Amino acid sequence: MMRDVAIIGVSQTKFGELWDSSFRDLVAEAGIKAIVDSNIAGEDIEAMYVGNMSSGLFVQQEHIAALISDHTGLNPIPCTRVEAACASGGLALRQGIMAVASGFHDIVISAGVEKMTDVVDATPAIATASDQEWEAQQGAIFPSLYAMIAKRHMYEYGTTREQLAQFSVVNHKNAKYNPNAQFSFETTVDKVINSTMVADPLTLLDCSPVSDGAAAVVLCPAEDAKKYTDTPIYVKASAQASGTMTLHDRKDITTIEATKVASRKAYDMAGVTVKDIDASEVHDCFSINGLLAVEDLGFVEKGKGGIALEEGQTERDGDFPINPSGGLKARGHPLGATGIAQAAEIVWQLRGDCGKRQIDGAEIGMTHNVGGTGGTCAVHIFGRDRN
Amino acid sequence: MMRDVAIIGVSQTKFGELWDSSFRDLVAEAGIKAIVDSNIAGEDIEAMYVGNMSSGLFVQQEHIAALISDHTGLNPIPCTRVEAACASGGLALRQGIMAVASGFHDIVISAGVEKMTDVVDATPAIATASDQEWEAQQGAIFPSLYAMIAKRHMYEYGTTREQLAQFSVVNHKNAKYNPNAQFSFETTVDKVINSTMVADPLTLLDCSPVSDGAAAVVLCPAEDAKKYTDTPIYVKASAQASGTMTLHDRKDITTIEATKVASRKAYDMAGVTVKDIDASEVHDCFSINGLLAVEDLGFVEKGKGGIALEEGQTERDGDFPINPSGGLKARGHPLGATGIAQAAEIVWQLRGDCGKRQIDGAEIGMTHNVGGTGGTCAVHIFGRDRN
Repeated sequence: MMRDVAIIGVSQTKFGELWDSSFRDLVAEAGIKAIVDSNIAGEDIEAMYVGNMSSGLFVQQEHIAALISDHTGLNPIPCTRVEAACASGGLALRQGIMAVASGFHDIVISAGVEKMTDVVDATPAIATASDQEWEAQQGAIFPSLYAMIAKRHMYEYGTTREQLAQFSVVNHKNAKYNPNAQFSFETTVDKVINSTMVADPLTLLDCSPVSDGAAAVVLCPAEDAKKYTDTPIYVKASAQASGTMTLHDRKDITTIEATKVASRKAYDMAGVTVKDIDASEVHDCFSINGLLAVEDLGFVEKGKGGIALEEGQTERDGDFPINPSGGLKARGHPLGATGIAQAAEIVWQLRGDCGKRQIDGAEIGMTHNVGGTGGTCAVHIFGRDRN
Repeated sequence: MMRDVAIIGVSQTKFGELWDSSFRDLVAEAGIKAIVDSNIAGEDIEAMYVGNMSSGLFVQQEHIAALISDHTGLNPIPCTRVEAACASGGLALRQGIMAVASGFHDIVISAGVEKMTDVVDATPAIATASDQEWEAQQGAIFPSLYAMIAKRHMYEYGTTREQLAQFSVVNHKNAKYNPNAQFSFETTVDKVINSTMVADPLTLLDCSPVSDGAAAVVLCPAEDAKKYTDTPIYVKASAQASGTMTLHDRKDITTIEATKVASRKAYDMAGVTVKDIDASEVHDCFSINGLLAVEDLGFVEKGKGGIALEEGQTERDGDFPINPSGGLKARGHPLGATGIAQAAEIVWQLRGDCGKRQIDGAEIGMTHNVGGTGGTCAVHIFGRDRN
């Protein structure tokens, strides 16, 4: 980076089935909260990025960055939508970082939003994140694609149904203490396994929900950050990679190559190893993808993710705490908002603002945001210290 | 900018109703041609941006940057889609420039693509570039919105129907010499005025067509450009602005504020005035928007655009040549590709590669790309000389 970047404010709306909030309302709420949190005035913002997967199919509205700019009084600043399916938020964050790093802008807001409950069935829209011609049109929608991955992981590595379910159990345990989470109930391995079958072996409680919501972060040059806040959080790495859109093009469907590539780039850029990461938010659209993240980010060797979950290593007091927010499963997964909400959670964790879901002494945190079954992956690393 | 940026290669596919080319084919063709033009190998590319308005509604496919990366063999580099309605291409170019300027990447390809003819009626998808709740759902689709602007411009400034038609006449005259243009026929003021009525006063020949097509540019740090080509073209400015989504929110619908703001920023950044611009590609989705551009970019005073057109000042040998490519009207307007195709044309003009449509001695060129009725505007300035 030509210039270091810091986060001076973050926000997240409540995630859930928000029947009383429109697309516009959600992003305005997130934006205003982030502005308040960063001690800036709205007119200080020089550019906005917004991550959103499919406002076209969900609310029949494209050109949403301009709409948001107009609706929130940001005109005439540059406002840009970024799309990469469920990784849209992570990429909007990355573009905001580049806008500051490049010297084009000083204060930039990166937001994410998705309004998914205005359609009768969200599945056809979500399926456009896979390859229509090779997957979606053949009926291979995401639960079935991830179910195939899970089956293969069980076959190759002896991963058990109980270990998979454990990912959801830990998420729900954390979400209980997150006031913005969609679900505040705890669950058990038995309850997960015995919930409604979706695509064998994945049941309802292995799957992230359909959600409405928005989130935002405010970025500025690292050297200016202390003007706005006593606790800036520094961007130590922003990395992104692409992988095959379809599962049949992969040598091994139990590994998401884009996660491996993006995370290794991020560790290099930040000058850290995976052992230095105190808190992570990973992309558990399905429990199996959370488990793959544990392996592909390098927390454990390939095949050992199930055992790590069983041993509680991803819990808040474990060796590598994951998804203190509740993750996609329990915080909710408004597609374009997720990557930004992950960053907001890590900022809160590094500031020490998380109350009962706080990971004690977290200094370095990571977000991992995946599009589709790994066509896109964005990994960001943040730190309390600038260097 | 922290680091200057140059264009070392460009490309455009044929624009038109390309029944035999899929979305994937188009972008692959543009990408390969741009790589060849820039004397790089595919593996030199470190990141890709793609401008696209609505692959979700046109071809039921989101997550297209990953799809393109996969389909063209670019994996695992970061590939990002940018959307801002008909300004998507201009913004993809701008993000590519930032990616180089920020030091994140050296060689970056910015592409644009739209496949519009796979739907029976493109209008509902295009209408999502306006504000659904205040315009599209009330029946105010783009031809009618721009027709209102035209009527008001005629009322305020005495602009004539003939002057408006002249914009299309000049475009078609230029497109005749552009082998990639959708239309190669010339037309006359009489023929424009007497073509099928679309929305009074705009007739069919005032309106840009529904098109398929793609375009690409290859960017690198300015200091490296001569390694690849003897005729690099330098990015002198990249500016973007947002304006109101709806016409009813404007004090004056005959001015596109986002054009004014973005162009003034661009002139400042490039250290030029409008008089220094030798060749421009402007966003004439309708003839009236071309006329507004002549005024709002500052070539003439507000209200004098019609007279300037009548006097031939926008012709290739006029005072300020506009749309040597044929513009959106005659080159065609595959929405997300347009902003990139404009940049490709200016690069060809500045290189002196345009044959019969060449603007003699062009040293500095400009592109002007608008989303909706001016919710977004991107202006870029390019030069043969680095300084």
